[in-house]
Amino acid sequence: MDRREDDENLGGGGGDIEHDGGGGGVGGYLYERRDSNASSFWDREGGAVREPLLNLRSRVNTTSQIAIVGAKVYPIESLDYEIFENELIKQDWRTRKRIEIFQYVFLKWTLALLIGLFTGVVGFFNNLAVENIAGVKLLITSNLMLKEKYYQAFAAFAGINMILAVSAAALCAFIAPAAAGSGIPEVKAYLNGVDAHSILAPSTLFVKIFGSIFGVAAGLVVGKEGPMVHTGACIANLLGQGGSRKYRLTWKWLRFFKNDRDRRDLITCGAAAGVAAAFRAPVGGVLFALEEAASWWRSALLWRTFFTTAVVAVVLRSFISFCRNGNCGLFGQGGLIMFDVNSEIPAYNTPDLLAVILIGVLGGLLGSLYNYLVDKVLRTYSFINERGPAFKILLVIAISLLTSCCAYGLPWIAQCTPCPTDSDKECPTIGRSGNYKNFQCQPGHYNDLASLFLNTNDDAIRNLFSSGNKNEFHITTLFIFFTGIYFLGIITYGIAVPSGLFIPVILAGASYGRLVGRLMGSFSSLDVGLFALLGAASFLGGTMRMTVSLCVILLELTNDLLMLPLVMLVLLISKTVADCFNKGVYDQIVKLKGLPYLEAHGEPYMRHLSAGDVCSGPLIVFSSVEKVGNIMHALTMTRHNGFPVVDEPPFVEAPELSGLVLRSHLLVLLQRKKFTKNRVLSGSELLTVFHAFDFAKPGSGKGLKVEDLDLSEEEMEMYVDLHPVTNTSPYMVADTMSLAKAAVLFRELGLRHLCVVPKTPGRPPIVGILTRHDFMPEHVLGLYPQIAHQK
Amino acid sequence: MDRREDDENLGGGGGDIEHDGGGGGVGGYLYERRDSNASSFWDREGGAVREPLLNLRSRVNTTSQIAIVGAKVYPIESLDYEIFENELIKQDWRTRKRIEIFQYVFLKWTLALLIGLFTGVVGFFNNLAVENIAGVKLLITSNLMLKEKYYQAFAAFAGINMILAVSAAALCAFIAPAAAGSGIPEVKAYLNGVDAHSILAPSTLFVKIFGSIFGVAAGLVVGKEGPMVHTGACIANLLGQGGSRKYRLTWKWLRFFKNDRDRRDLITCGAAAGVAAAFRAPVGGVLFALEEAASWWRSALLWRTFFTTAVVAVVLRSFISFCRNGNCGLFGQGGLIMFDVNSEIPAYNTPDLLAVILIGVLGGLLGSLYNYLVDKVLRTYSFINERGPAFKILLVIAISLLTSCCAYGLPWIAQCTPCPTDSDKECPTIGRSGNYKNFQCQPGHYNDLASLFLNTNDDAIRNLFSSGNKNEFHITTLFIFFTGIYFLGIITYGIAVPSGLFIPVILAGASYGRLVGRLMGSFSSLDVGLFALLGAASFLGGTMRMTVSLCVILLELTNDLLMLPLVMLVLLISKTVADCFNKGVYDQIVKLKGLPYLEAHGEPYMRHLSAGDVCSGPLIVFSSVEKVGNIMHALTMTRHNGFPVVDEPPFVEAPELSGLVLRSHLLVLLQRKKFTKNRVLSGSELLTVFHAFDFAKPGSGKGLKVEDLDLSEEEMEMYVDLHPVTNTSPYMVADTMSLAKAAVLFRELGLRHLCVVPKTPGRPPIVGILTRHDFMPEHVLGLYPQIAHQK
Repeated sequence: MDRREDDENLGGGGGDIEHDGGGGGVGGYLYERRDSNASSFWDREGGAVREPLLNLRSRVNTTSQIAIVGAKVYPIESLDYEIFENELIKQDWRTRKRIEIFQYVFLKWTLALLIGLFTGVVGFFNNLAVENIAGVKLLITSNLMLKEKYYQAFAAFAGINMILAVSAAALCAFIAPAAAGSGIPEVKAYLNGVDAHSILAPSTLFVKIFGSIFGVAAGLVVGKEGPMVHTGACIANLLGQGGSRKYRLTWKWLRFFKNDRDRRDLITCGAAAGVAAAFRAPVGGVLFALEEAASWWRSALLWRTFFTTAVVAVVLRSFISFCRNGNCGLFGQGGLIMFDVNSEIPAYNTPDLLAVILIGVLGGLLGSLYNYLVDKVLRTYSFINERGPAFKILLVIAISLLTSCCAYGLPWIAQCTPCPTDSDKECPTIGRSGNYKNFQCQPGHYNDLASLFLNTNDDAIRNLFSSGNKNEFHITTLFIFFTGIYFLGIITYGIAVPSGLFIPVILAGASYGRLVGRLMGSFSSLDVGLFALLGAASFLGGTMRMTVSLCVILLELTNDLLMLPLVMLVLLISKTVADCFNKGVYDQIVKLKGLPYLEAHGEPYMRHLSAGDVCSGPLIVFSSVEKVGNIMHALTMTRHNGFPVVDEPPFVEAPELSGLVLRSHLLVLLQRKKFTKNRVLSGSELLTVFHAFDFAKPGSGKGLKVEDLDLSEEEMEMYVDLHPVTNTSPYMVADTMSLAKAAVLFRELGLRHLCVVPKTPGRPPIVGILTRHDFMPEHVLGLYPQIAHQK
Repeated sequence: MDRREDDENLGGGGGDIEHDGGGGGVGGYLYERRDSNASSFWDREGGAVREPLLNLRSRVNTTSQIAIVGAKVYPIESLDYEIFENELIKQDWRTRKRIEIFQYVFLKWTLALLIGLFTGVVGFFNNLAVENIAGVKLLITSNLMLKEKYYQAFAAFAGINMILAVSAAALCAFIAPAAAGSGIPEVKAYLNGVDAHSILAPSTLFVKIFGSIFGVAAGLVVGKEGPMVHTGACIANLLGQGGSRKYRLTWKWLRFFKNDRDRRDLITCGAAAGVAAAFRAPVGGVLFALEEAASWWRSALLWRTFFTTAVVAVVLRSFISFCRNGNCGLFGQGGLIMFDVNSEIPAYNTPDLLAVILIGVLGGLLGSLYNYLVDKVLRTYSFINERGPAFKILLVIAISLLTSCCAYGLPWIAQCTPCPTDSDKECPTIGRSGNYKNFQCQPGHYNDLASLFLNTNDDAIRNLFSSGNKNEFHITTLFIFFTGIYFLGIITYGIAVPSGLFIPVILAGASYGRLVGRLMGSFSSLDVGLFALLGAASFLGGTMRMTVSLCVILLELTNDLLMLPLVMLVLLISKTVADCFNKGVYDQIVKLKGLPYLEAHGEPYMRHLSAGDVCSGPLIVFSSVEKVGNIMHALTMTRHNGFPVVDEPPFVEAPELSGLVLRSHLLVLLQRKKFTKNRVLSGSELLTVFHAFDFAKPGSGKGLKVEDLDLSEEEMEMYVDLHPVTNTSPYMVADTMSLAKAAVLFRELGLRHLCVVPKTPGRPPIVGILTRHDFMPEHVLGLYPQIAHQK
């Protein structure tokens, strides 16, 4: 621990390192204070900042930036959920009128309403489009098969699939690479405070909507719920930004929402609305947002989220009752309609419970294997995807072809089954939907594997959940389908198409469950449809690791509360089993993407370190009345987002920490050029020039940059008073504070910067600044490798 | 704002004032530092602590202690959810073996299992007992009525009711006064960090269980869900304490749970289990704990709570299937069985929606009126209850008589109705349950008001929710029942009987909803049973102000997900309407009881104050090696629970804040009498004598007290090193920090003490300590009345 001793004496360090991926990093840049006329505390101290820079150079935080996938694509920025307390904002609050508070509340609810409305509409449109496109495709194929033109049928089937898949891939590759994949990990990271570039941009929204439609309609083993969550979040973000600066009225009303905190709340609502729209599960949506998406939660948000999902439910219901009259083309039952599982559950006995436990354990094992394989596949694909759009599209073509071959080829293995005589359903069916696909069979027979493969994913799930006819699917059929979907699902995630994970997992789980149910046939009295549901639950628990939200989503999907205890049991078992092996799939992807996600709990070894121990990098400090040139220099040469401000003599007796100033606020301040020739306090004048909303957070990509500033040599030599834009109440910890406790503070309050102050009197008033990256295990273990060895 | 200036210069203040209600308060006590040989920083500073005491005296925080109800009964203590970081605990963590971590996790889940198990058993037992006792009572009454002995029937009915009610009241009044009322407000306050005396004691548990059974069986308009929540919390608390110190093994394993943080988690599980047991609503229970009960929440807790409620569901299911064979006496359908509302909802149209909105608005109005009246009644009753047990019992007798008169008398007004010919239910019924009570009618007729009044509350609700026969209840009947139950419910809450609020509110709401449904008959096509459900939802929303959890509880009660959008709509409307008038009923009771509940958000005026502004009371500071006599003096003369410790010369160069020491830890330290003659560091020796679990939080009422210590004069003159028991990483804020932000820190991290340190260098290292009371609006506005005027 000799290194620790060093740090304690050294008293320097602490940088806010959020470099752009392509920017080369701040690592080697050494900033020296150039304040020439003020006899600074630091100078008196003997250059504590200047001297040990060579030591510090090796300690600059870069480790947590090592992402395996996509690191070079997205510049990552932290969000700031702290309530800001600078003079301007304080003034603004003081003068805020009752009417403005009313505006705020009114607007908050209006935005929630609009998010629900738009997400509901998009969700329904998505479903409608998929049903119609896939319906036409299946109709063409089955008509050709009816004429026994089997090769033409395959050509048509595979061709349409490929065109759709390539369209989706092209959108993704050329317009918005951020739209590929599920989107839930990115939303989760955003709500944790990590803003990856253009993840919620309008182009991403556009590609997510249409890419998802094409991808699902192309018959790929992908779902629409992840993309719907991302879509909901994008819609919420766009609405929160509110048009553009052109429309002055909109902008003025929306200025209250121009901060990270309110935007986070909106996006939570959006994520909940997305789940509600994808599954028509309003309560499940709220719980999903609570359990999986959000990192911070409060009761007021619960209510607002609930309202949003209620709106989604109403919108969907209206559309469905409109479509019931046949106004929507080939829109059949869709994925929005609840699956009806037989609700008559006999009083289950011990063998049944054993079967259920078996399903849970196996589901947990298979689920964690799924996560493991997805991880491996993603790492492999990242090599291909990084080579450029053409390679991305080639990969999609390959997967699409493979999927088409499986879907069209495998049913030929299955034998034809005579139609059941007592069923009231049509058998065999030729058209778009139905349980009993004719495929190549003679009349009066059906191909059970085709009923699963040559269908939309939603219909396949509905078929698997169907109860009553126990022998509808053969054991071999279920086994082939399960194996096929399990591996297709794994290799499909990661291609450049918006792809949800829920539906593949439910499909694989339901076929696995039904398979177990068939095998158990003589032991258990439970229905095979119920087995399919439990299988789906076990897979979901094994991959996603959610509990309450999955339980409620499944119940809302199937509309049967009597199965609750069994579903709960299966979820608990499979999650417990799977947790022994690896993390949930979304956490895994967040890690893989290199997003600096802040866990709810610090690592145990953090108890042995103090906050001062992890402060790294040279510290840049501004005086409260600082020379413009110094500020410009610091802004240009570093990418730090927050700088400590220190009150120095002659304004105070001894140097003391004034607060923290943000890069974005400095830029606004410098842009107006309200400088003074001499080093004097001019804060009160500045207060009259600026309004609080001048400092509001701009929409994505619209912020000021250092390059936008154009200052003359003369101006560079002038002074500016930083008091009005300084957050005078930053949260702070002593440098001897346990790192674990500092991490709790940082995480629970959703901070972006945490000031570390010296405990011992007589030292410079600030030791360093901790940011999100300083709490990342990679960074801490990089500084103290011996801890990693001890573990 | 002249007062603020004063404070800033004064630099003193900050006391942790948690006086016992009967203790007379700390207000007037002036503590002077007696440290004679150390030239203390304070002495040098010119007695900043000593001088302005006369000023301070008037500013001591007592305002937030002014409770209207029950303040004199319960001494109130804060809980400490902070992770503790003193040397001993650090050492303990370092040496903690892998096996101990496994023990911890294993035990955590075992405790969750046991909580679920016990709460489930108690919940079922409660139901079984009520059904049997009330069943016998109703059988006796109706048999006497059949022989036309109407006066004897009334005498028997009222007599049995009174005996039961008096039993419940006697238990409450003599054994555990804390068991009266719902218990949800107290559990809510506990989870917020307020520990009222004996609220979770074994005696309270005992009285809550049996008092609730007697109270409900006595036909009082009270429910069992509030008491069940309280019961669950008590069970969790008992299990967490784990037997007593006698059983060494149990105690050793459970030592990890001997802190406020783990106990809070257990009690959250207990509260969820209570709701799950009362309504057989496992998901609803989790959401209730999340939305209403808990103040802090994290994802891991969600899972554990879910597990607990799943266990409850399984236990209840097993018991019910056991009772289905007639093994349980008069146990009929009970309150545990789901109410079956007709699930066939026609596609509703505009008039239906208007009716639903009307129900929501009226329900909100009536709900907030309910809260208002409950508040008034509680204030009135508190005068009676405070006079002693005899008065409490007299009040219960009065209410019981009134209830009996209503229940037996009002049905005579109703006219007899001929039995419906097409019903497959028995009509008229004479025995214990059934929709169609014969009462005084001739054969073939039934008295519809008696079907509601002369029944258990659960059966009455089931009757109101019953669908199909629209004319089962007359409009006048519904009106009489609604009025009766509404006011009986209001006057019953507050008597010395364990009394839940859910059932009275659901009863009143369901009758109101069914009444509206009947009145709307020709306009709306919705079923009257559905109207009753919506009415219940509107009342619940109007009084309790919960959304998601109520929605799920209602769905789990009625087992019908298709009604979800309508229920959501009604809940949102009624909550919004009611929120315009007053707070939720539980919040109101928390306030009424004077429990210092910490709201999630600070008040807006806190932005204009700083942390230093509200520090009040004289500050008592210990030196890091302190004279035993000084410590004893401070412990005896004050009731402070935390004291700042300051490192002073010769151990350091200049005085600096070492940390915070707790009263309970000091007592343990002093009890072992490891003192030194001289002022030397003896911390490392102390570390070998003590173990971390010596400082574990004892069970309720078992802690050491100052009076237990017996120190000689000689020992009083010796020194003790406080370093090992000092929390060296207390959270702190600068005295200039905005009070609003300090409040956020305090609330989000669940602190008990927050150190206020000076921002300007060269002052004493601690300005004051903020506790829960210092953030109470009453305290802040008491210090700065002009703010209250400005509002």
